[in-house]
Amino acid sequence: MLKRTEVPEETMQRMLSYLRELDCMLQNGKETFSSQELAESLHVNPAQVRKDFSYFGEFGTRGVGYDTARLVRELRAILNLDRTWRLALIGVGNIGAALLNNPELQRQGFEIVLAFDNSSRIIGKRFGSVTVEDVSYLVTRIQEERVELAIIATPVSCAQAVADTLIRAGIKGILCFAPCHLQVPKGVRVVPIDIPMALGRLVYRL
Amino acid sequence: MLKRTEVPEETMQRMLSYLRELDCMLQNGKETFSSQELAESLHVNPAQVRKDFSYFGEFGTRGVGYDTARLVRELRAILNLDRTWRLALIGVGNIGAALLNNPELQRQGFEIVLAFDNSSRIIGKRFGSVTVEDVSYLVTRIQEERVELAIIATPVSCAQAVADTLIRAGIKGILCFAPCHLQVPKGVRVVPIDIPMALGRLVYRL
Repeated sequence: MLKRTEVPEETMQRMLSYLRELDCMLQNGKETFSSQELAESLHVNPAQVRKDFSYFGEFGTRGVGYDTARLVRELRAILNLDRTWRLALIGVGNIGAALLNNPELQRQGFEIVLAFDNSSRIIGKRFGSVTVEDVSYLVTRIQEERVELAIIATPVSCAQAVADTLIRAGIKGILCFAPCHLQVPKGVRVVPIDIPMALGRLVYRL
Repeated sequence: MLKRTEVPEETMQRMLSYLRELDCMLQNGKETFSSQELAESLHVNPAQVRKDFSYFGEFGTRGVGYDTARLVRELRAILNLDRTWRLALIGVGNIGAALLNNPELQRQGFEIVLAFDNSSRIIGKRFGSVTVEDVSYLVTRIQEERVELAIIATPVSCAQAVADTLIRAGIKGILCFAPCHLQVPKGVRVVPIDIPMALGRLVYRL
């Protein structure tokens, strides 16, 4: 069995989609599944599914298939999702507020424990147990609260400056909703969620 | 010069990121750029940038580089983004409302002209010029308003049924925020925006 860092990026990404699909199966009461079924519902090759699983050892029993609940647990462990991650959110506009009000994130192991904005209209607002704080205190508060990940939901104009500050505070992973390319040092991971670009992908073939 | 449908998928995706980056450059007053500069800011190979551009003919002048504004226009035309697309939104929860309140989408050529929900608390709410309608009228209204694309922002439990209805109404492109894999016929394009999965991609290497 390989260490997580030795497994190819594409395999890890597929493991995430397997997890999502199996989670759905489990919610629909499907207790066992075959690699064939999983492959079909995701439009991938069954041999690919078996190969991906084989990086992490043997999960299935020949002829019986896989135990859905067990595999969900195993995949969560493999993907570093068998724990809760503490997040800071920067920018509490419409998208930021939607994230603060989204119980699904917490169910998936991502808890927004800090929220920041630079507008006096927004600082002090409460969302459940989180009160929006002044972004001037970003570094101190992230370190005090031992936050590990951040979500940038600011306008493009300040996204890079916010990223620089987050990195100074020790953040190693950033989900970025601002539609721009962040420059970050090696060792910091940025995953963009660019809604206009996703819409763009819908139309270039139409 | 190739037709759009003959250009590889990966090239089209990179063209979208070039467009985003050049749009930022333009907003920062940068009137010309070299393939080297564009490549550096996106961490790709300059030869790759030149090869991608070459699919669509000659844009640059040797030694002078490229005209930013002209290339933004050309890329928009190549990517089918030199027009406004009419969208329907299904599910006006937190994310849906955030999208209705997002002026950036319209600036990028995506106008949400219809919004639907199944809750009587939400039907009738106004967001700018859009009033949320009863999802029972989805097919009729999409056809009346000649809508071409849809955004699903419903819970997972009804996402597939909504997708089936959209396809019956003639929709060919769906942006899906529900964290599940939609089954759609060939010729319909789905682009997922799965926030928990994006967060998952942040942590599997940590």
